[in-house]
Formats: sequence, structure tokens, C-alpha cells
Amino acid sequence: MTYHSSGISIDAVRLLSRIEQLGQIGRDGEDRLVRLAASDADKSGRDALVSWMKEADLEVAVDRIGNIFGIWRASSAEDQAPIMIGSHIDTVIDAGVYDGCYGVLSGLEVIQSLRSAGFVPSRPIVVAAFTNEEGVRYTPDMMGSLVYAGGLPVEEALASVGTDGTVLGEELARIGYAGSKEPGFLKPHAYVELHIEQGPVLEKAGVQVGAVENLQGISWQRITIEGVANHAGTTPMSLRADAGYAASRVISFLRDRAASSPTPTVATVGCISFEPNAVNIIPSRAVFTVDLRDPNEDRLQAEEAALADFLIELAAAEKVTIATERMARFTPVTFDRAIVKLVEAAAEQRGLSSMRMTSGAGHDAQMIARICPAAMIFVPSIGGISHNPREFTPEADLVAGANVLLDVVSQLASKQ
Amino acid sequence: MTYHSSGISIDAVRLLSRIEQLGQIGRDGEDRLVRLAASDADKSGRDALVSWMKEADLEVAVDRIGNIFGIWRASSAEDQAPIMIGSHIDTVIDAGVYDGCYGVLSGLEVIQSLRSAGFVPSRPIVVAAFTNEEGVRYTPDMMGSLVYAGGLPVEEALASVGTDGTVLGEELARIGYAGSKEPGFLKPHAYVELHIEQGPVLEKAGVQVGAVENLQGISWQRITIEGVANHAGTTPMSLRADAGYAASRVISFLRDRAASSPTPTVATVGCISFEPNAVNIIPSRAVFTVDLRDPNEDRLQAEEAALADFLIELAAAEKVTIATERMARFTPVTFDRAIVKLVEAAAEQRGLSSMRMTSGAGHDAQMIARICPAAMIFVPSIGGISHNPREFTPEADLVAGANVLLDVVSQLASKQ
Repeated sequence: MTYHSSGISIDAVRLLSRIEQLGQIGRDGEDRLVRLAASDADKSGRDALVSWMKEADLEVAVDRIGNIFGIWRASSAEDQAPIMIGSHIDTVIDAGVYDGCYGVLSGLEVIQSLRSAGFVPSRPIVVAAFTNEEGVRYTPDMMGSLVYAGGLPVEEALASVGTDGTVLGEELARIGYAGSKEPGFLKPHAYVELHIEQGPVLEKAGVQVGAVENLQGISWQRITIEGVANHAGTTPMSLRADAGYAASRVISFLRDRAASSPTPTVATVGCISFEPNAVNIIPSRAVFTVDLRDPNEDRLQAEEAALADFLIELAAAEKVTIATERMARFTPVTFDRAIVKLVEAAAEQRGLSSMRMTSGAGHDAQMIARICPAAMIFVPSIGGISHNPREFTPEADLVAGANVLLDVVSQLASKQ
Repeated sequence: MTYHSSGISIDAVRLLSRIEQLGQIGRDGEDRLVRLAASDADKSGRDALVSWMKEADLEVAVDRIGNIFGIWRASSAEDQAPIMIGSHIDTVIDAGVYDGCYGVLSGLEVIQSLRSAGFVPSRPIVVAAFTNEEGVRYTPDMMGSLVYAGGLPVEEALASVGTDGTVLGEELARIGYAGSKEPGFLKPHAYVELHIEQGPVLEKAGVQVGAVENLQGISWQRITIEGVANHAGTTPMSLRADAGYAASRVISFLRDRAASSPTPTVATVGCISFEPNAVNIIPSRAVFTVDLRDPNEDRLQAEEAALADFLIELAAAEKVTIATERMARFTPVTFDRAIVKLVEAAAEQRGLSSMRMTSGAGHDAQMIARICPAAMIFVPSIGGISHNPREFTPEADLVAGANVLLDVVSQLASKQ
């Protein structure tokens, strides 16, 4: 696929205004942005999106899991598989305004700008807002796109019970977003998702556009180490079975191994607790989590195996017992090479610096990649901060990213 | 001082029976032994002790902080400074039956046995039960002996507010143990305390009697490490400021240093917490405690300094900030050499194995050592377990320890 610029750009003022407007919907009493999936606040956000879709003269469709689609069926292209642009508009608690919303609103903007500029697509172009990407109220996260891609039966997803005891299907019906379309009713020709990076790589590198070529596999484990509680003053070092010390060895092992490796593997211990958790008692138990990620499945398995080997040695050396429990496991996703190259070419054409990169976070794109060629475009996150009101991307970067999206979509939907 | 056996032994059946009886007083609804200082349960325990003191024809005195004294003033010795045998009968929550009570009841047994055998002491012999050694309801711990030795004004101690909002002075008056004697009213000639080891050393060594020559200094610190919270998937290892990893380095440093040193230094990290404590977020903050102990003050200071140096290096290397806060600090106590030798000689005379050792825990003896020569005798704790219903010392060891106490006291109170 060679690159031909459409010469069209998005309406920056309209895009930034909509991001700001959507970011004001769902503020709680403490002015925190909270639009949990299928809540009243989510309904308000959805209503705003649908009104903008209608303003752009798009056909609006909602499927049974509540995914919203704004469809531009150009008469020339009705029978073709569509280009889909997607992300989500649900948020975490006390969220920033960009995560997800930026991708959906940019998709809408791209369609509206192409259309008003007289662009004639060879296939329909669809903007999608997937239900419950964040997974705060209902699990699993990335639920709407997972169901859409056939990875989870819709009935099972609708039966999900929330942290507040509600049932997702009932809540979707209550807010008027239990649609009638079967998930997967539009089979995309290609899928593109524009998102803030949520990490520091682009900012640190001083690069404006990330051409996301893959998405890390994730391995979550909970590790429980059992030692023997004893008096901190009366128990000689040689007679201890210290679960806390053993935990510290695992934390150091993971970090030192990942930091000294030339691979992009990342390893994190984010949660920990000791029992009995008293100043003068040697811990009898330490429980902690391990988050391992790598874009290559073989390497991720090798890291898991290295940890397992280390735990066996450690248990013997420290006279402790160690149990591991798998909390979550996702294999890595490789995005479509041709679309990644289009992202690079579009950035170059616009005079923007770009770099290939890996997504460290999970996104709807990883689910939709199961059913069609897919890729992602990242823009910088200042300080790498997200899931936080301090989440921030400069306006110039937001506009640049949306124009790259426009160029990629117009290429994918061009008549060649 | 040369050793001359009195030829007298304690009444083992009476001692063991009283330990068992006292261990049944203060059982809560879950059958847990709980006699917190100045509680109703403590009153019941005190009443039993006082009734046994009267049964042994001792003069009972109570001082203003509630310490109870059973005094044998042999007519030959009235004007001499007394030999004091002491410990405590308050307990932790869900306690064993030996900690403290064994020492007090053995002291009573020693006096009663010496007296009924016709022993003629050159000085009064006193058994003391000090108030609030455990420090669970009121702080500080070892309070009664600290006040007795002049280390804390009695008014200040009586004003102590408990975890339940009560005031110690009011509670002592309520249970009838706010005495009239000024703390310190009996100035001891020497002090001996018999106690279970609360550690595994004697059991592991297969030795019956510990001649306790010193008591560790204790240094407690709370360490707070501040890093930067970031996404576990999107933040490369090289760009992290991981407070949790830095904490693991400190834990490993302390343990590896103490374990590889030929000194008796012990180091423990018993409490820890991470913030925000989420599986997929790099910890922004780690808070943990450090318990360092050594019987030598210079070495304890050297260990504190080594830790401080390590923290400075670590903060720079890991891009974190580290703050330390002193929670408690006690200098080591060296017990009286002559009494320690008497303990060894008494054990040998009884055909018991003995070893010199360090007390890793705090005891009333460390306070009374401020005002007179003092030492302690330890008996084995099976598994090193204490502050727990599984606290256990075989009867033969309990009896042997009490007989060694009798011999030491009779030597100290003999007419030479």
C-alpha cells in the first residue's frame, strides 16, 4: 500500500471542544470525573456522543452489549466491510479526560471532516465506542470489544454482577443502551485506535507519534510465602524462616533481572502484605503480586519459568513454602504491519516524528485484532500519567494524532 | 562469692499447680487468656497472688503504681536491704501461661520453701509483681519496674491513657491496687528474675538453664520511601522510581548483613505497606519498620550508621527519597557478673547444663538493674514460642529453673 495524502485535516477546534465537553459530563460532588460503565453518568456521556454522531449525519447503532456505532455508509461503498475506528468513553474513578474519549471523538472527527471535505470512501467508515473498557464496575475489562470479537458470550457478559451488586444487562436496559444488534454485526476490514500513550516513552524520546506495532502479553500472579512467626529479639538470624525477607528477595530478583535484560520485559510488585505485621515479630506470611509483561510470548513464558525456578531455590534456601496463583494471563498481540507502516508514513507526510512502540497497557484494539487487521496510534502522555486528573497531552499533539488517524483511515478507505 | 548449697528444694507440685491456677484466671469468651494491666481480669490474678502470699505468711505491700510485694522479714535481717525476686503477672491478648507468671510464682515458691525448711536469711527476701510489663493497654511497657527504678515519674505513669480510653491511675484505684507505698520504697541489695526464654536458643542447644549476662539494646525505626507511581505496563524499567523495590533492597541489606556477621546482631522488618497497593501500579510509597538489636551499644550504633549510609546510597541510585523516624531506643543492659556466676554454679551443683546468653526481649530486670546488681535465669521455650497459647516449657525445666533460683537467692541471702 503506497501512501497518498488526502490533503484533508480535522477541525481542531471542534475536536478539542468536544473533548472538553465530554470531560465535564459525570463530575461527582468532589468534581471528580467518574463515568463507570452503564451508570447514569455513562448514560449522559453516551447521550452526548450519540447527539454528536447524529449532528454528523451518521447512522447510530447499538449492539446487545451496549457498544455504540456511528456509521458513515457512503452510497458508493455500502456492501463493503467497513473501516472501524474505536475506543471507549467509560472511565475509572477520578479519571483524566483523554483516556478512551480522545480516540472515540477523534474517530468521529475524522469521519465528519472527511465527509464535509467531499472525500469518497471505497467502504463504510465506522466510529465505535466499546462498553466497559475500564472494568472498574464490572469485570472483565475491555468487555465490549471482547464480546464484539466473539471472545465472551454476550449473555455471560450481560449477567456480570458489579461491585455495587447491580447486573450489567439490567443497568444497560435501565439507561437505554441495551441495543438489538448482535455483537460482531459489522465485520471490519481494518481497525485503528488512537489513544494517549499512558506511559512516558514518547515524551522522554521527544517524539510526537507512536506507531504501535504490538501489545504486551500480561502475566499476573499472586505469591504467598509461609515462614515462621518468631520474636524479633530472641530468634538468631540462623534460625529464622522469614517470609518477609523471602518476599524482598523475589522483588529484587524480578527487578534486577528485568532491568539488566536487553529485552522490553517489565516486572512489577505493586501489592504486598505481611502477617502478623508487627514491629517485633518475624513475618510468618508475605503475600504479594507479580505483574510481568513482554510483547513476545516466548520471552514472557521464559520470564515466568525463571521466576518459578527462583521460587523453588528460594523456598529451599530460606526454609519457607511458596505458593503461586495465576490472577490473569493475556498473550501478546502483534498488530498489522501494513497499518503500522501507514501510521509511520502519515506521520512523516505531516512532518511529525514517529517511532515504533509497544503498548504496555491493554486496549480494545487487542480484542478487535482477533477479527481483522488492527493497529494503534499513540500520542505523548506528559509524565506518563493516566487514570488520574493530571493526565495531560498538549493540544498540538492531540491535533497531530487525529490528523494522522485521518490520513491512515483515508488511505485504508481509498478506492485503490 | 563461693557457692554453698542450702540443700533445700522447692515444692514442685505446689508451683506447677499455682501456674496452672493462675493460667485459668482471666479467660475470655473464646477461652483466650487475657489479663491486661489494671483490668478486672488483672484484679482477679492479683487477688490470687495476694492470697497465696498471705498463705505463705508474707507481708503484702502495694506501691502507688500498683506493684505488689510479698515480703519475708526474718527477724534476724529486718534492717538489711532485701533480695528481690520479680517479674509480672499481666499478660498480652491470647497469652500463654508462663510469661512473667512463672517468675513471680517461682519467687513466692522459693521464699515459702526456704522458710518452711528453716533457712535463716541475712536479709529480707521479697517477691515482686510489677504492674503493666506487657504494655498492651498502657504504654510504655515495663512500666511498673521503670517507675520503681525512678525512670518515670509515678504521676506521669498514672496519667497514662489506655487503648480503651481509660486512665491507669483510675483503673488501679477501681480494682483496689492503687497502693500507698512510694515506688522504690524497698532498695534491693540484689535482684533476680526467672523467665522463660521466649526464644529457641536453649532448646536448640539442648541446654536446661540460661545464665543471662546481658540484655540487647533495641533500635526501632520507621522508614518511608517515596518514589513515583506509574503504570506497570507502560513504564520502562529504566524510568522507574519504585519505592517497593527500594524497600526490598533495605530488607535484604539488613538481613544479609546481620546473617553474615559474627556478632549477635539481629535485624527484622516486621511491618510493611505499599501505596497505592495496586497490582498494575509501581508503588509510589513504601513504609516499613526496622527492629535492630545488639547487646553491645557500640555495635548497635554501628549497625544504625551502616543502615543510614545504605539509605543515602539507595536514595541516589533509585531516584527515591527516604525518611527515617525513631520509634524506640533502649541501650543494652549488662547484668551483674557475680550473680551470673552464681547462676552457673547453682546449675552445675544441681547437675543441670547451663550456658551464658543474651536476652533478646525486654524484661523488668533491665529496669531494676538501674538501682542494684541484677541478673536473670532463663529456661527453654519449646519452639521459641511466646505471646501465644502454644507457649510451652516442660515441667522438669520449670522445676529445675525454680530450684536454681532458690539456690541463687539463698546464696545471696546467706549470712556470709
